[in-house]
Amino acid sequence: MTNGKKDLVANWQTLQRIFIRPESEASRTALVKYMQQILFGLHDFLKENVGITREASLLELSQQFTDSRINKNPKKKLEDVIRGLIEDIAPHAVNVASPYFIGHMTSAIPFFMVHLATITAALNQNPVKLETSKVVSILERQVLAKIHRQIFVLGDPFYKEHVQNPQSTLGNFVEDGTLANLTALWVARNVCLNPKKGFSGVEKEGIAAAYRSHGIERSVVLVSRLAHYSLRKAGGVLGIGNENILPVDVDENNRIDLAGLVRTVDRIRENDNKTKILALVGIAGTTETGTVDPLPEMAQICSENRIHFHVDAAWGGPTLLSGKYRHLLAGIEQADSVTIDGHKQFYLPMGCGMVYFKDPYIMNSVAYHAEYINRPGSVDLGIRSLVGSRAATSLVLGSALDIMGAGGYGLLIDHGIDTARDFASEIQKRPLFELVTAPQLNILTYRIFPPELQKAWQAAGPEKKKALNNRLNRINIRVQRQQREAGKSFVSRTTLKRTREEDKVVFRAVIMNPMTDPDTLREILDEQEKIYQDSFLSDK
Amino acid sequence: MTNGKKDLVANWQTLQRIFIRPESEASRTALVKYMQQILFGLHDFLKENVGITREASLLELSQQFTDSRINKNPKKKLEDVIRGLIEDIAPHAVNVASPYFIGHMTSAIPFFMVHLATITAALNQNPVKLETSKVVSILERQVLAKIHRQIFVLGDPFYKEHVQNPQSTLGNFVEDGTLANLTALWVARNVCLNPKKGFSGVEKEGIAAAYRSHGIERSVVLVSRLAHYSLRKAGGVLGIGNENILPVDVDENNRIDLAGLVRTVDRIRENDNKTKILALVGIAGTTETGTVDPLPEMAQICSENRIHFHVDAAWGGPTLLSGKYRHLLAGIEQADSVTIDGHKQFYLPMGCGMVYFKDPYIMNSVAYHAEYINRPGSVDLGIRSLVGSRAATSLVLGSALDIMGAGGYGLLIDHGIDTARDFASEIQKRPLFELVTAPQLNILTYRIFPPELQKAWQAAGPEKKKALNNRLNRINIRVQRQQREAGKSFVSRTTLKRTREEDKVVFRAVIMNPMTDPDTLREILDEQEKIYQDSFLSDK
Repeated sequence: MTNGKKDLVANWQTLQRIFIRPESEASRTALVKYMQQILFGLHDFLKENVGITREASLLELSQQFTDSRINKNPKKKLEDVIRGLIEDIAPHAVNVASPYFIGHMTSAIPFFMVHLATITAALNQNPVKLETSKVVSILERQVLAKIHRQIFVLGDPFYKEHVQNPQSTLGNFVEDGTLANLTALWVARNVCLNPKKGFSGVEKEGIAAAYRSHGIERSVVLVSRLAHYSLRKAGGVLGIGNENILPVDVDENNRIDLAGLVRTVDRIRENDNKTKILALVGIAGTTETGTVDPLPEMAQICSENRIHFHVDAAWGGPTLLSGKYRHLLAGIEQADSVTIDGHKQFYLPMGCGMVYFKDPYIMNSVAYHAEYINRPGSVDLGIRSLVGSRAATSLVLGSALDIMGAGGYGLLIDHGIDTARDFASEIQKRPLFELVTAPQLNILTYRIFPPELQKAWQAAGPEKKKALNNRLNRINIRVQRQQREAGKSFVSRTTLKRTREEDKVVFRAVIMNPMTDPDTLREILDEQEKIYQDSFLSDK
Repeated sequence: MTNGKKDLVANWQTLQRIFIRPESEASRTALVKYMQQILFGLHDFLKENVGITREASLLELSQQFTDSRINKNPKKKLEDVIRGLIEDIAPHAVNVASPYFIGHMTSAIPFFMVHLATITAALNQNPVKLETSKVVSILERQVLAKIHRQIFVLGDPFYKEHVQNPQSTLGNFVEDGTLANLTALWVARNVCLNPKKGFSGVEKEGIAAAYRSHGIERSVVLVSRLAHYSLRKAGGVLGIGNENILPVDVDENNRIDLAGLVRTVDRIRENDNKTKILALVGIAGTTETGTVDPLPEMAQICSENRIHFHVDAAWGGPTLLSGKYRHLLAGIEQADSVTIDGHKQFYLPMGCGMVYFKDPYIMNSVAYHAEYINRPGSVDLGIRSLVGSRAATSLVLGSALDIMGAGGYGLLIDHGIDTARDFASEIQKRPLFELVTAPQLNILTYRIFPPELQKAWQAAGPEKKKALNNRLNRINIRVQRQQREAGKSFVSRTTLKRTREEDKVVFRAVIMNPMTDPDTLREILDEQEKIYQDSFLSDK
């Protein structure tokens, strides 16, 4: 490509050359060689360790990234940049692809996803408008219809009418589940605080005018207390106020407490005519425990009270593709809107949130036009969307569906749930551990609860129990941190809060990597037992 | 990889294999071959035409994308999917890389961007939290500091203190400029409607409570009428109401009219104590005309009236890297927040919006925590961010800055502005055309205004002028459409609205592709002249 650093900028011709198709055999060979280094060099570096190290070493590391100047001249050639990323950056990244990384909703992805992401970058289409995407906008509509159909199962005539109808919107691709939830509540807010005589709608006039016109003083959204924090954030962003995202307690299975929910709905509807319920949110796979709310009963409550029903299936959504476990999401077809993340259990690279709406016209409540794009009636997908310019992620998801088939995704889902159940049995077999939340999908929580403390617990009164629980929390925090810092495996940690119980620190395991098998999980438990014995022997 | 379709899913071992590093030479060779096809196959297809075709052919095309079922078994092997994307999809995509595509803010990107995007996908880090990104979060902070420094130029001690300080936030990567503007106004709203005695802030309690507590009835944002529609959308989303994003008229140079702005500010501050001004937005590169608002004067107004000053430099931001034209953005360093898009003039692939804040603590007004991530005090970048999970785009921008240097980007900016000025002269030389808005940066608008109609215009009264203008609009709409449908080149079209003038339909040219030179532009004008002559000969 270029021989020296200065050549790259000093010379306009050289700069131009990087924008066009390299014609010389040597240039083409070099570009392919770089790609080869990327494909296999990164794999080689990532295969070793999970690699979440200590805070201290992180601090040291950060001292190498403090220069805030941009060089006038190029600092590195492409070749050196790629080598640097492979040799200096990758070893300090987190090996989310390791089967021993069971701490978060990020995992290995099939290698072909990297190829598909490359195609997306190379085509560089922008689906905000037809003039920068054309066939890709059409393909996106089809991919959205495919997932919509898995959720809402509305039959051939519906999809025939809407799949390529510019007036319809079946859903949106956004960056992540946070923006998908925000989009869903944005629509729900606008439908609830809709235009009426003398009022042109909340989107135009704002919340304060909407409340005045609708004769209320606040609006609320009801969610389980295990809801993702993005729902609170959406409340803040949308001007509802995040305090008005009201958490409802959960039952002993970590599902929203239906009796409590009904009480809350009735109390508001009967005694508080200054408050409107904008939406009720069911979760299909809570972030902390992977549990699924009782969706059919929640749908029923929404239908009786004419409340927007949103289901946050960012995690659990792809379970719909499993013949064996699809029933766990029953009721989702009654939702008004649904969030699903492609970068979670569709195993796409980062950046693929999605939101779906049962009513293909409901997004008219958030439509925007401009003179230069998104003209009314056009196929421009930016008309009804929170985001404007964005990558053509539908190319990746659409291709992945073709390559994997529903059956392929189904097998991955089945593996995760079956392995999580197996893991739960193993935890229950080991005296040192307590299974705290059993897996409904493929997430479970557990903690170290040594037999001698279990015994003490049974004999203890409330004060003593509090002290014991604090001690358990300290033990689990320390073991989790030491395991993380050892770098071989990673289980995350969270604090489960219940109204009538002490806060419980637990390990959280997310089983989505198909390479994570029962042996992997036994090794992880072995390591935790060893860390506990080595660290707390003196405590006993 | 696999021999038949059924093998791919019927067999769990086969499915697992796609998640691990291929060890056999044959598999590795195949993966590299696919990458080679992607790199050069797409280039080959894209080199021919711009390819925005007629609506009719689009309708035909869309009939091939109506199947909304997901196959149970895999439909295609990876090889066939890649071939399909290259042979069936790419030819119907838009060749945004063509030098003749001068209609939108999307263009050719350097080929190395594709490599960098591939690395990002392969590493698949998620910067929402340190536990899924580690060094990438640190690198992101450094990249943010580099751009922050270009904007605000705050000196060594500032950047030394903040570049790696977990308590500071210099900016965010988001999906696009729309979300960047939304983030900026979200922060501005929360700072303006801040907590006070008996009120815990708008983020917690919502807009209605905030207005009650602050004793107001509405809040507004002042922008030029040429502002991007995302600002109106942000007003809608944030609960302010998009009608309260107040457009201020522009002067004869399409910059916000300062006298009008001052009048509006004074009127609100002196006579309307029920209205608060949340923010004032200056534009550094309007979408339609590429003009830069008078930033120093606007900064002065904001400073005198203690109003948040946001600059939407989604388009113009990278001009800061040009020694020759940096001065065009003077005053931006006085902004409180700034939007810049990486996928525009940093030539990154889609999906790189950015927002920057001068005050490294101002984003505390939008901080969110959760039990499992984003714990207070952690380095988790998701604490203060609209979006949660997202791709590690900083890897791409950071590497691109190393490869290009400020100097390389500067040359690209200089080329765009110089070429646009040259194009403006050429337009002025040709009798058939009228230059409507001269380029301040690298965007200009013009229209066909045949000499005989110019003559008629000079003699016409108001009614006649209206009729003539309508006729001109029809001519320009038709020529733009015919040129687009011919598929050789693409100039976009917009309608310029001024308060005291008729709506003017114009061609809009965005000169950012380094392969677009004066010859290209002359060819585009030649084509427009020919289309006009062929189509409107009978009109004359």
